[in-house]
Amino acid sequence: MHRLELTKPDGRALTLYGLQPLQDIGPAPSPFIEPLNRSPHLRRNPLRDEWVTYAAYRQDRTFLPPPEYNPLAVTVDPANPTELPQGNWDVAVFDNRFPSLAPGADEVPSLVVETAPGVGKCEVVVFTQDRLASLGALSLAHIELLLRVWADRTEKLAQVDAIQYVLPFENRGAEVGVTLHHPHGQLYAYPQVPPVPARMQQVAGDYYRANGRGVLQDHIRAEMKSGERMLYTGEHAVAFVPACAKYPYEVWVAPIEPVATFCDLSDEQRADLARALKTVLMKFDRLWERPFPYLMAWYQAPTDGQPHPESHLHAEFYPPYRTRERLKYLAGTELAAGWFAMDALPEDKARDLQQIEVDIDAL
Amino acid sequence: MHRLELTKPDGRALTLYGLQPLQDIGPAPSPFIEPLNRSPHLRRNPLRDEWVTYAAYRQDRTFLPPPEYNPLAVTVDPANPTELPQGNWDVAVFDNRFPSLAPGADEVPSLVVETAPGVGKCEVVVFTQDRLASLGALSLAHIELLLRVWADRTEKLAQVDAIQYVLPFENRGAEVGVTLHHPHGQLYAYPQVPPVPARMQQVAGDYYRANGRGVLQDHIRAEMKSGERMLYTGEHAVAFVPACAKYPYEVWVAPIEPVATFCDLSDEQRADLARALKTVLMKFDRLWERPFPYLMAWYQAPTDGQPHPESHLHAEFYPPYRTRERLKYLAGTELAAGWFAMDALPEDKARDLQQIEVDIDAL
Repeated sequence: MHRLELTKPDGRALTLYGLQPLQDIGPAPSPFIEPLNRSPHLRRNPLRDEWVTYAAYRQDRTFLPPPEYNPLAVTVDPANPTELPQGNWDVAVFDNRFPSLAPGADEVPSLVVETAPGVGKCEVVVFTQDRLASLGALSLAHIELLLRVWADRTEKLAQVDAIQYVLPFENRGAEVGVTLHHPHGQLYAYPQVPPVPARMQQVAGDYYRANGRGVLQDHIRAEMKSGERMLYTGEHAVAFVPACAKYPYEVWVAPIEPVATFCDLSDEQRADLARALKTVLMKFDRLWERPFPYLMAWYQAPTDGQPHPESHLHAEFYPPYRTRERLKYLAGTELAAGWFAMDALPEDKARDLQQIEVDIDAL
Repeated sequence: MHRLELTKPDGRALTLYGLQPLQDIGPAPSPFIEPLNRSPHLRRNPLRDEWVTYAAYRQDRTFLPPPEYNPLAVTVDPANPTELPQGNWDVAVFDNRFPSLAPGADEVPSLVVETAPGVGKCEVVVFTQDRLASLGALSLAHIELLLRVWADRTEKLAQVDAIQYVLPFENRGAEVGVTLHHPHGQLYAYPQVPPVPARMQQVAGDYYRANGRGVLQDHIRAEMKSGERMLYTGEHAVAFVPACAKYPYEVWVAPIEPVATFCDLSDEQRADLARALKTVLMKFDRLWERPFPYLMAWYQAPTDGQPHPESHLHAEFYPPYRTRERLKYLAGTELAAGWFAMDALPEDKARDLQQIEVDIDAL
């Protein structure tokens, strides 16, 4: 992996990653000139003991691009800068111009609830220069590079004392609110472990102390033994519809043996994890012969400097469709109670995906 | 309040409620003849220790009504039965034909995750006979009746040993997946306290033990003192945009002094709670002069037979719009991390709603 760190005219960081040595890289562009000076803040919900982040400036973006403008394209005309320079980079990461969490946040309003500065980091991760590609259409080597990039970002952000958790995710499709279709994901670095991973850490910790093994490790073993919901079974990685899926086409992707973060993957694990991931993505897009929308989130251990033998890096996919035509709306029981209701059996949805043949080695 | 309990031809319960003595009530109809024989089941997510309910039969509903068919209208032609009889009832409650949780559930598949029968109850609560009305358009007396109905259902369901939590809610609007626009809500009775109210109970319990007061009680006092986000301040009830809103137009409605469940409301509290609720609903619909979609959930104490001095009955509204034109999509940080990111300040959204004058006593 080759890496080049640059700084944009407005002070934001840009890091380029390549499979080949980086060459002929242009200067780091920015559609914005004024230095970034954003200070999101946090407020605590006293009934749930959960933080919410407020970045009101996100609403009054003065920059209103024309619909054909793609800020994730490379800059061709320096008079019309995008977010990315020319050159032979494969993956790029830069600071979100409108972050929900920012390193220098220091604004803390005085309110009837507890408040705190919105310290953290929001990064944009551009998967490829090809705006018509998709994550699943990238080569295995390119996907492996992305897994290395997520490791590099995690390692870098873990060095910031204030950052406790790093979550890479991708929202894909207009159905989940995406307006910019150039293949990209995001990365949020939080000042506390957020509620969902905090819950998972607590459950995994209890299980590890009681059993001396990982809860996902044992679940993967059981899913592999059953085989009923498996989508990919490699030497080091798997993908499957979990027996407890709460979205019809929910899929988990993980190394078979637990590793705490992206940084801990061996070369063999990373290579097989790329194969598992590409298999799932290709099956999704082939299912209805159209781009399959989803939320993909990668859970890893907190970046608190402690060992986390209970943690097990993995991805969870939450696709919004129940069937080809019908969305699953999250409503009363899901959003208000946190108790999901499913009309479909995971076994049936797994079968839909199992029946689709894909060739991940074809280019 | 007047009440009449009936049984539908397929065995489902129907209860009618009226402000006046119930008269000229027709026989309880049902669009379905065969007895209800549904057995949803639960599966436990081992990574989160959360239950998901599966009711696969919900997908193959053989009954496909024409678009103009309204099952919540009263039956005019016995050859074309709906769910409700003629008569002078004001609110009706009946067992959902396609329940996610059912009293007689006894099907427990053997799987790689823990499973359990989907014991519980899913009820449909019809707010009025007028399909063109809305909850906020009903008279204060009618809304008070609904609060009594929710109390009656809670009391009745609390007697079932297997039921631990009763959640009344309304999904309103096509934006939250509603296809049937006759004013109605639902009520889920769960075999365990679901994750969100369980978290709230835990936080409230800790606060009560530490302070001898309720966490929402103290929050309401602080919101009233500030006044910045108040929408209704009565003698016994309030409505406000909470300082920690995680949806732009999130609103909480509550009695000022804590009561554990709907059953514990005094007449004065109930009357003022109806005024607070109607105020919010009218402001919502006047905001953009169109029906305002939302999820409304009412949190109360678990029905476990224990005293819950820490619990404080209240409603939370989650409207899906950020602005008149733009939806707030729940994506990576909200759904995967449980950490909400807001573009708007609650103070600004409260001001939008404060500026709208409504006359809740007008009919």
